[in-house]
Amino acid sequence: MASPKYLTGDQSAINDFIDQFDVFLFDCDGKKIVFVTNNSTKSRAEYQKKLTTLGIPSNVDEIFGSAYSSAIYISRILKLPAPKNKVFVLGETGIETELKTEGVEYIGGTDPAYRRDITPEDYKGIADGSLLDDNVGVVLAGLDFHINYLKLCHAYHYLRRGAVFLATNTDSTLPSNHTFFPGAGSISIPLINMIGKEPTALGKPNQAMMDSIEGKFQFDRKKTCMVGDRLNTDIKFGIEGKLGGTLAVLTGVSKKDEWEADNAPVVPAYYVDKLSDLRG
Amino acid sequence: MASPKYLTGDQSAINDFIDQFDVFLFDCDGKKIVFVTNNSTKSRAEYQKKLTTLGIPSNVDEIFGSAYSSAIYISRILKLPAPKNKVFVLGETGIETELKTEGVEYIGGTDPAYRRDITPEDYKGIADGSLLDDNVGVVLAGLDFHINYLKLCHAYHYLRRGAVFLATNTDSTLPSNHTFFPGAGSISIPLINMIGKEPTALGKPNQAMMDSIEGKFQFDRKKTCMVGDRLNTDIKFGIEGKLGGTLAVLTGVSKKDEWEADNAPVVPAYYVDKLSDLRG
Repeated sequence: MASPKYLTGDQSAINDFIDQFDVFLFDCDGKKIVFVTNNSTKSRAEYQKKLTTLGIPSNVDEIFGSAYSSAIYISRILKLPAPKNKVFVLGETGIETELKTEGVEYIGGTDPAYRRDITPEDYKGIADGSLLDDNVGVVLAGLDFHINYLKLCHAYHYLRRGAVFLATNTDSTLPSNHTFFPGAGSISIPLINMIGKEPTALGKPNQAMMDSIEGKFQFDRKKTCMVGDRLNTDIKFGIEGKLGGTLAVLTGVSKKDEWEADNAPVVPAYYVDKLSDLRG
Repeated sequence: MASPKYLTGDQSAINDFIDQFDVFLFDCDGKKIVFVTNNSTKSRAEYQKKLTTLGIPSNVDEIFGSAYSSAIYISRILKLPAPKNKVFVLGETGIETELKTEGVEYIGGTDPAYRRDITPEDYKGIADGSLLDDNVGVVLAGLDFHINYLKLCHAYHYLRRGAVFLATNTDSTLPSNHTFFPGAGSISIPLINMIGKEPTALGKPNQAMMDSIEGKFQFDRKKTCMVGDRLNTDIKFGIEGKLGGTLAVLTGVSKKDEWEADNAPVVPAYYVDKLSDLRG
């Protein structure tokens, strides 16, 4: 497989790179930019605030998060017939906000009724179904900082009863504080292990997310570049989406030796040490 | 592979079956009995109380639980040099009681300090190590009804720092209330997914448990029968332990069609519809 082109310090190569693309799916000066994030704990509006505090100008419509992508998938693609289309949420407010925007009914999530220890009455009522909502047709698992045994029991029993299994994304870890913490994949994996099947994941590198971005922006894939720091999500997302280019930024999760290994599964077209290198 | 012999109603076959064995590793009249359980939430003493309430006479020394088996493994086999031999526990009092019995130091477990939401200070202190105990050398994951994000973060970071990864057992589910609820395997699987390696599991069908039972009772494996309702734990445990016999009881998790399938991975030597059938 071809090696990625190293751009840092090579202004002529940088200019050629930027000239090739009309759309950058994550960060870059001047051209059209869409911010794509697997973090489902924030809604697009919350994410936009975060970008502002980081000094990055953006507007909500330029942001695609896995919570939004999941809400779009449920309301516009899955379209389960009412009333059996309620969602049981494992996750934070980001998911709830985006489900509301799309008019999708849900239970669970940040509801304090589920943020507690399990009781003998819960076991009984979950087992006989009296504590389950017959209208739940979907279980959506995102990153839930308040995950507990009671929520896992509910999610598992809805899945046993045939609910559609979705995940905002399945990243096992989440980069934070210069290290890693459990990611959304840590919430869905016990359910996968119990029911023996995988969820449909709506974040990168899943192409359902690329399709909904394209549905909104109508960009030319060949004139679009995916920029990101994680090979198995960001760069894979761009390659599988048949974008014109992919740019790896070495400030994040993935390191150069990952694509230099024999049979490396994901190799970016370009790479830089840090994003600001593109400013020349 | 040979089919299991059906004993229900065939008194002469039942007599032949019972006569073959001196030790039954789970339940039966008259002969030596050892109760073997993967449930780590109860200590042997608590399990003995439970058997008493079920009308089953027993004494603590006849009980082998995965919490006890884990404590034995840590103190007598793993034997990490002090002071770097502390255990970070994901689990309930059963594990704590058995670790205390073996004189093993631990943190986590049922400590209320870990039964709360994660804070920004936790992220920071876990990331820089200031909130981690340098003497933790083992992470032991059992069934924890109070699992939360904070505990997963601690366990994950101890494993990243090189702690030995143990699990009381890895059953994905736990039979309860005539259905299933998340089992100990639901606690260890997010960690497996994050660090990319499997724990040493100390419950059935792991032979570390058979070895410690044998170490205590010095029985003749050929004159011993494993009796149980779950093919992939109980019966597999007996077969891999090269016991003289295995008896499947159809009142529990596994059904007859599981071993009647082509290439069934685990086939018991005998089976009955219910254990009382052995009384004839």
